[in-house]
This record gives sequence, C-alpha cells and structure tokens, in this order.
Amino acid sequence: MIREVRHLLDEKKFAQLRDLLCLQEAADVAQLFEQFPIEELPLMFRILQKDFATDVFVEMDTELQKSLIEAFTDQELFEVFDDLFMDDTVDIIEEMPANVVKRILQHTSAEKRKEINQLLQYKTDSAGTIMTTEFVDLKENMSCEQALDFIRKTGLEKETVYTCYVMDSKRILIGVVTVKDIIMAGNDARIVDIMEKNPVFVYTDDDKEDVMNAITKYDFLAMPVTDREGRLVGIVTIDDAMDVLREEDTEDIEIMAAITPSDKPYFRVGVFETWKNRIPWLMLLMISATFTSKVLTHFENALNSLPILMAFVPQLMDTGGNAGSQASVTVIRGMSLGDIRLRDALRVLWKELRVSLLCAVTLGCINFIKMYLFNDVSRDRFGLGQSLLISLVVCVTISCTVVIAKIVGSMLPMLAKRMGLDPAVMASPFITTIVDILSLLIYFGIAAALLNSVGVVL
Amino acid sequence: MIREVRHLLDEKKFAQLRDLLCLQEAADVAQLFEQFPIEELPLMFRILQKDFATDVFVEMDTELQKSLIEAFTDQELFEVFDDLFMDDTVDIIEEMPANVVKRILQHTSAEKRKEINQLLQYKTDSAGTIMTTEFVDLKENMSCEQALDFIRKTGLEKETVYTCYVMDSKRILIGVVTVKDIIMAGNDARIVDIMEKNPVFVYTDDDKEDVMNAITKYDFLAMPVTDREGRLVGIVTIDDAMDVLREEDTEDIEIMAAITPSDKPYFRVGVFETWKNRIPWLMLLMISATFTSKVLTHFENALNSLPILMAFVPQLMDTGGNAGSQASVTVIRGMSLGDIRLRDALRVLWKELRVSLLCAVTLGCINFIKMYLFNDVSRDRFGLGQSLLISLVVCVTISCTVVIAKIVGSMLPMLAKRMGLDPAVMASPFITTIVDILSLLIYFGIAAALLNSVGVVL
Repeated sequence: MIREVRHLLDEKKFAQLRDLLCLQEAADVAQLFEQFPIEELPLMFRILQKDFATDVFVEMDTELQKSLIEAFTDQELFEVFDDLFMDDTVDIIEEMPANVVKRILQHTSAEKRKEINQLLQYKTDSAGTIMTTEFVDLKENMSCEQALDFIRKTGLEKETVYTCYVMDSKRILIGVVTVKDIIMAGNDARIVDIMEKNPVFVYTDDDKEDVMNAITKYDFLAMPVTDREGRLVGIVTIDDAMDVLREEDTEDIEIMAAITPSDKPYFRVGVFETWKNRIPWLMLLMISATFTSKVLTHFENALNSLPILMAFVPQLMDTGGNAGSQASVTVIRGMSLGDIRLRDALRVLWKELRVSLLCAVTLGCINFIKMYLFNDVSRDRFGLGQSLLISLVVCVTISCTVVIAKIVGSMLPMLAKRMGLDPAVMASPFITTIVDILSLLIYFGIAAALLNSVGVVL
Repeated sequence: MIREVRHLLDEKKFAQLRDLLCLQEAADVAQLFEQFPIEELPLMFRILQKDFATDVFVEMDTELQKSLIEAFTDQELFEVFDDLFMDDTVDIIEEMPANVVKRILQHTSAEKRKEINQLLQYKTDSAGTIMTTEFVDLKENMSCEQALDFIRKTGLEKETVYTCYVMDSKRILIGVVTVKDIIMAGNDARIVDIMEKNPVFVYTDDDKEDVMNAITKYDFLAMPVTDREGRLVGIVTIDDAMDVLREEDTEDIEIMAAITPSDKPYFRVGVFETWKNRIPWLMLLMISATFTSKVLTHFENALNSLPILMAFVPQLMDTGGNAGSQASVTVIRGMSLGDIRLRDALRVLWKELRVSLLCAVTLGCINFIKMYLFNDVSRDRFGLGQSLLISLVVCVTISCTVVIAKIVGSMLPMLAKRMGLDPAVMASPFITTIVDILSLLIYFGIAAALLNSVGVVL
C-alpha cells in the first residue's frame, strides 16, 4: 500500500491516488500518512475528498495535526474545523499550543467558538470535557414518520442518530428514544408514546470514569449529559467511553507502578516530564527503605555472630514483596471493576488468609527441601544440626512473611479507599517497605529465639 | 428502593411491584436482586414482565443465574433461553456446570441447540466465542424503503439493527450499510448503491483482542465475522468489545504482578484456585532470589570487614526494583496500546537512558545529603573521611543501579515480544532479580575499588 501511494505521488497521479485512499478506512489512511515525510502531508491531505479528509484528520497523531494546521490556509482551517464534531474539536484544541488554538478559534464561526469555550470550561476529567453537543433532539408530539424526516434533514451533522433525545420547551430532558424503537413502531406512532420517560443521565460535572462505568453497565450507545437543572447539554458516545476506559486502566497501571500518570502516549512525554513523573516516588521509596536499613543495623550483632543469616535477606524481601503485590494488585483491580466493595473487607481478609497459609506452607516446605539439597547452609561449616536449624529459621520466616504480606497487601488498598484515597497508590512499593520491615523483625526474632535455645548466642 | 421492594413483597402487592421494577434499568434490577435472599428470587423474577425479565437475567451474577435456572420449570427455562441473544446464551452456558448445561440444551429448539454447539466449538479467546449470530442481513437489490420494512419485521430478534450486512447468494459478505445511511438516502435509493463494498471484517479464529482493537480503531458499533471463505457467520458488537477490553487489561495487570490470570471476578475464584494462580510465580521468584543470595555469600569477606555495607543492601534492591518496574510497566503498557512498536526499540532505549541518568543523578545527590544529615554511616565510628567514602560508594551504586534498572526494565519486555512471548511476563519480579544481582556486583565492585584504594582491605 505504501509503495502504491508512493508511486502514485511520484507520478503525480492524484485522481487515482484519491480514489485509492478514499476506499480505505480513515484510521488506516491516518496511520499511512505517518509513514510519509511531514512536508508531503499537506499535499496528500488536499488530495482527499473533503469529508473523508476531516475523518482522517481526527485520527492523526497530535504532532501531525499541528503540522497540518500550520500548513493550512485560513479557508482550509475553517472548513476542517467546521466539519468536526464538538468533542473531537475540543480534544484537538486541548492538545495544541496557545498560538495554534488562537488561530483555530479566529477561523471558527462565532457560534462554534462560544460552544468550544463553554466545553473548555468544564472541570478536568468531568463529563463536560468528553461530551459532544451534536445530538438529535426530537419533539414529543412528533410522529415516527416526522421523526425520521427530521433525522434525514439534520442527521449528517449529528455525532449519532441512533439514540434521540426529547426535551420540553425549557430544554429539560424528558425522554429518550432509539432509532430502532422509531423504526419498529411504524410511521404513525407518536414519539411521546414510545419514548422512555425518566431516562438515565449524568451531570456535566460527574467524573468521566463514572460516566464510562454507567455506559458499560447499561450497555448504552450514548449517555445524555445534563446541567444541574436537568437541561440537556450534550451526550457522551460509547466510543469516547471506550477511550476513557483505556485511559483509566493506564492510569491505574501507572499508579500501581509508582509513577505519576501522564495521560499521553509514551513518545509524547518528554524526558524531563518523564523524570518528573517518576522521581517523587523513587525518592520517597528510597527514603522509606532507610527504615529497613535501620532495622538491619539494629541487628548488627546477630549478623556478626552468624553472617550467613544475611545471605537469605534478599530472598525474604523478594518473596514478601511478590506475595504482597499479588494480593494488593488483585484487590485493587477487584475494587476497580466493582467485584469487591468496601463492605467485603472481612470476606477478602478471610480469603487472603487462607490463600496465604496455603502459599506459606508450600513455599516453606519447598524452600527447606531446596536448602537441604543445595546445601545452602553448608553442612561442612555448620554441621547437620545447626544447618537444619538455620534453614528452619529461614523457612519459618518466609512462611510468616508470606502470610503478613498478603494480609497487609490486601487490606491496605481497602483502607486507602475507606479514607478516600486512590487505592492504587497502596500498591507494591509501599507494601514492600512495610512487609520488609516486619519480615526482618520476625527473621531476627525467630533466629534469636531458636538459636539461643540451642546455645548459639546472637 | 430496597425497602420499597421489600414492603411490596411482604404485602404481596405484586402488580405494583412489577410496575415499579419495570421502570428501572435491567442492570439496576439485577443488582437489586442480589440484595435479597436467594429463595425469594424465583418469585421476584416471575413477577417481571417477560422480555424485561430476560434482560435482568442476563445482567445477573452467575451464581444467581444458576439458582434461578434450578428453580425454573422446563417451560420457563425454554422461554428465557429462547429470548436470549446467542452471545449471551453462550456466555451463560460457558459458566454453568455440566448438568445445568445439559438441562438448558434439552429445553432449547433444535436449531438453537445446533448454533450454540457451533459457537462453543470455537477456539478459546477467538472472535467466534464472543460473536452473536443475530444480525440484519439485507439483499443488495432492496430499496431503502424495503430495507426499513425488513428491519421492522425482523429487528426485534436482532442484537443490533444499526449496522446491516449484505451477503450474496452464497452468504459471502459483500457489503455493509448503516441504518443512518439507509435513513439519510431516502426511500427510493438502493442498498447496492449506498452500501460500503470491501468492508472491514475479522475471521472467526482471530484473537478477540485483535477484534477489540479493530473495533476501537475504526470506532465501529459492530464488526462482521466471517469464516475463511468469506461467509458471514456473526458479528461482534461494541459492548462485547468493551468487555474484552476490561478483561485484557485485567489480564495484563495480573501478569505484571506475577499472577496467572483467572478471567473471573475476585470472589468467584476459590481459595485453592487462587493458590494455584499465585504459587508457581512465588516459587520461581523465590528460587531465582537464591542467585542473589549466592552473590551475597560470595562477598562474605567484604561484609565481614565492613558490616555496615550490609545495611544499605535493602535500599539498593528496593530502588533498583522500583526504577526497573517504572520502566517496564510503562513500556509494556505502551506496547499494549500501540504507542510503542518493536521497531521503536532504539528510541525507547535512548529515552530511558536519558531519564535514568536524570533520576540517577537526583537520587545519588539526595541520598548523599540524606546520609550525611542523618549520619547513616556514623562519623563517630568511622571518622569523617571513611564515612563520606562509604556514603559515596552507596550513592554511586544507587545511581548505577537506577540506570541499569531502567535499561533492563525497558528492553526486556521488548525482547520478550520479539521472541513471541507476552511482554507483560517480563515485568517487575523478573527484572527485580536481574537488577538485584547486577547492582550487588556493582556495589561490592565499587566498594572494593574505592575502599582498597584508601587502604581498607575488603
């Protein structure tokens, strides 16, 4: 495909090129454009049929959109943005630098400019920022035939015609009716009789994550958005809800890995910004690891008497960290999906306790056998009895660590949510530090108890 | 709401209860039912109007569905399943134990039973397992008016009427046309003239994740699914694609936390199954941590000469682990979203290198200052000179560790993908082990070099 396009471009066979490209999906053409030098894009763009060109423009990467905007004449700029739906317009404007935004707004109709500014005012991450204003508004006294005619006349400018909205004279949302209902009811039925009164809706300042959850829950194709007085101001369509879903999951994943979320694709976050997103957590966790160091220093005498104890500290800490994050990640995700609610805390604790006991016993036994087979505590140096005892200390500590790790790992996120914090913050790194300290205390405690009892002074 | 329902139930005011419930969304009624004792569900279910009851049934939790099925008479069972769309039927059947499945199939029409069995045959996680067979099939020589009439007659049994499919006499998919196009074109236009020839489609054995990505990419409401000969066999609708999206993200999150994914809500995975999903990785990582132990044992002499070196090992390992997983999680997610492709490996490396250098310098300096201010290496014990030197060893090692961690963390997932493995497997736990070993080697190497040079023998 790229070669074909390259060939037609070089041969200046523009009519043929347009026919070829306009047969493709807009998203594919946008991806194709990314493979060509940026200087050639304005030409390639202008070859496309106008409506299709706008569809391709929406799908393009922000950097390429910026280049194209800079190359557009004022007339071209006006035509493209006049053709765009409001939610796409706002999305693009939000990513552009100030001078580009100024130029776009200068070459938009006054009415559109007013709408854009209204949409830009909405609180970050609210329904208002992802909604679009082009919806089909029917009157309740229309017949289905009249409704279809109306859709026929205005449908081209609407984001979706499949869900239509009925407002009263004050623009209060009073009903929702799908195009399927309209078709199925036959020409003579009246909208007011077939519409769903008391429709589900969201407010402009509701969090976009709640909007996405509602759309997913009810399997809607679009969700009406009203202001606090009940006046319909826009709709959120399911494709935008899917984008929100991806963003929210990415955000959770980043927070669980101790990164400040960035909301942008990997290569669009610069080096300095990436550093800013990662360094606070690295510093915080490096400093909290200091407490772990203090614990080790505290037990320096024990370590001096029996240096071999040191060799197993990494194993303890790694096992504790992994066990803890298995539990925390599972619980965080479960809460995110709505499978686990705050009131389930005791059920979660009971389940994690039993799982941790199973894991603890398995790991303890496997490790004991492994330590014996691989002579980890050299029997030549320590003798069989002491070697087994030290191995026992290590294995019992691992078992205790796993149990503590899973309890801490499952309960901390729920505690965070109870306190109104984002549970994802209580993921691996924090839990690791707490579990490390507890497991070291257990380690040296058990070591002291067991070994003292056989005359080894720690 | 619950109290109202409780009251109406107790007063046996069933007609009122039906009216109240049928005004709600099916998903909300299903959630409501979960709050009531399981014995009361059959009664509450039978109160509902039939079509609505089926909608509620689909939204219910699997355990409750099973209870209801067991309470249903054969006639009720037949009616409910006769009303369900194919994809929902298959979803439910896949979750039921064998005896329940047998009963369901016994009380389904022969035609449906054949379809269900065909759908159950499809490879796990393929398009065939999430598609539905109830789509609108138009003939190319229909006029738009005839098409709307056809939709009117058959639309009730179709999963969606918004995207319609045109097949030739051999059932080969030859075109796609939306209901919007049909309405906009006017009654006399012909389907063959307005349909999109060469439509985008997927095969029955394509991975459901690819199907979901295609639906998201093209913003389709439904994706046609054909067999390898091009015959249309089903469609995947966007709501099912959203479910796949959530599942795939959950799967990625679990794999990155070293858990075998389970595909089921938290409380539906039993204690034993949870243990089975977590223990392989815990064992694997505990055993690989043995190598870290061996490294420490190897440097036992150094530790004996200067035990304080041990105190900072947790800090090193934690910082390395966090730095590494910040990089790996970012790269894995970037690849999952399509922002990073395999050919971007060098770009990723270059970016991570620069970010890691910034982080390394920041952390090294901050830590050096912290160690001095908090007298981590006691100046009373070691003297100013040696204290600063040891602090320098620790900080230089932390800096090197961060750089290595981010390089290893970003490159391993890409290497995994290059080898055809799931990059999410190369997340935190594996990277932690590799980074731990490398950072310990650096630590003792630098310690030996710097301290030997001032006469401290390690």
